Amino acid sequence: MSALETIDVKTSTRAEMVDVTALVRAAIRRSKVTSGIACVFCPHTTAAVTMQENSDPTVRSDMVRHLSVVVPREAGSERPGQNSDAHMKASLLGPSVSVIVDGGKPVLGNWQAIYLCEFDGPRERRLLVKIVEG
Amino acid sequence: MSALETIDVKTSTRAEMVDVTALVRAAIRRSKVTSGIACVFCPHTTAAVTMQENSDPTVRSDMVRHLSVVVPREAGSERPGQNSDAHMKASLLGPSVSVIVDGGKPVLGNWQAIYLCEFDGPRERRLLVKIVEG
Amino acid sequence: MSALETIDVKTSTRAEMVDVTALVRAAIRRSKVTSGIACVFCPHTTAAVTMQENSDPTVRSDMVRHLSVVVPREAGSERPGQNSDAHMKASLLGPSVSVIVDGGKPVLGNWQAIYLCEFDGPRERRLLVKIVEG
Repeated sequence: MSALETIDVKTSTRAEMVDVTALVRAAIRRSKVTSGIACVFCPHTTAAVTMQENSDPTVRSDMVRHLSVVVPREAGSERPGQNSDAHMKASLLGPSVSVIVDGGKPVLGNWQAIYLCEFDGPRERRLLVKIVEG
Repeated sequence: MSALETIDVKTSTRAEMVDVTALVRAAIRRSKVTSGIACVFCPHTTAAVTMQENSDPTVRSDMVRHLSVVVPREAGSERPGQNSDAHMKASLLGPSVSVIVDGGKPVLGNWQAIYLCEFDGPRERRLLVKIVEG
Repeated sequence: MSALETIDVKTSTRAEMVDVTALVRAAIRRSKVTSGIACVFCPHTTAAVTMQENSDPTVRSDMVRHLSVVVPREAGSERPGQNSDAHMKASLLGPSVSVIVDGGKPVLGNWQAIYLCEFDGPRERRLLVKIVEG
C-alpha cells in the first residue's frame, strides 16, 4: 500500500497554468511504486489538473485567455462579481488526471507536461497523489 | 478483488447536478477497501460525473445555465430538436471521476462534492463504482 | 503486474472521432486482467480520449463541428494560423478515460464507445492502455 503524497503550489495570479510535472515525478519516486496508475487529484473547486504542451508557452496563455472568452466572469449571472466562472472552468478541465507509471516514472508523451490550472488565485493550492500498483 | 458497486439516481428535470457524495461514500464502505483509487463511472452518453462545490447552490445553477450558453440546443444542427447538445455537455464534463480512498473513505476537499450531471432528463440513471486497492 | 499495451491509430482529417472500443477490448484481453481499472491514455497534446454514443454518427459530427464554434481557429490569437485551438479542445475533452474491467471486459453502457479525438490531423497517433487489477 503506497502512502498518499502531497504537492504544495503557490499560484501568483487569478488564472494560470503551473507546471507540476517534476513534483509529480518526485512523488511517484517517493511512493516506490514501479508500475501502476497514479491519480493526481486537486481537492479544490476553482482549480483543476490537466496535461498540455511543455514547450511553447503561448499554448498555455492562449488557452487561459480563450477559456475566459468561453466562460466570462459574467457567466455567474446569479452571483455577479463572484467566482462562478472559476468553478465552471475547473469542471471543464476536471479535478484529476490519471498517469500511467512504468519503471518508477510517469509515462508521458514527448511534449506532455502536467499542469495545475488556477482559476481563482493567487492562492496556496495542494495536490494529492495516490498510486496503485499493478 | 472488490465487487462492482452500483448507485441508482432518479433525475427530475432536463439538466441538473445531483449530489451523489453520500452514495459514493456508502459504496466505498461496502467494498471494504481501505486504501486505493475508486472509479465513479457513468455508463450513459447524455449524463456525466464531476466534482464541484457543495455549499452555495448558485454555483451549480450558474454552471448548468452557462453550459447551455456554450452548448445551446441548436448546437446539434444536423439533428434539430434532438439531443446533440446533451451529448457534447456530457463529454466536456467527462464520464467518470477518480476518487482517492484513504482510511475507507473518499478523500475530498472541504468544499468538494461528487455530482451526477444530467443533461437529457428526467431519467433513471445508474453510476458504477469500482475500487482498486493499493 | 500487467504489461503496458499500445494501440496505433491513423487519423484521416484535421478533426474527427475514431472509435477505438474494439482495440481497447483486445488490449484488455491481452493483459489477462479480469477485474480492475484500465487507464486509456493519449500521450499527445492535440488529441484526446472520450466516451460517446456508438450509434448515430451525427452525434459525433455535431460535436466535432460545435467544438470548432466554441474554440475557433482564431482562439490562438497569439499564434495566428497555428494550432492553439487543437490544444484547448484536447484539454477540454481530456487526455484519458478510466474504464472499469469486469470479467475480462470493459464495462460500458449499451450505447457507449471509446473514441480517440483528433484535433490536428491527419496523423499517426498512439494510445497507451494500463490495467491495474483489483
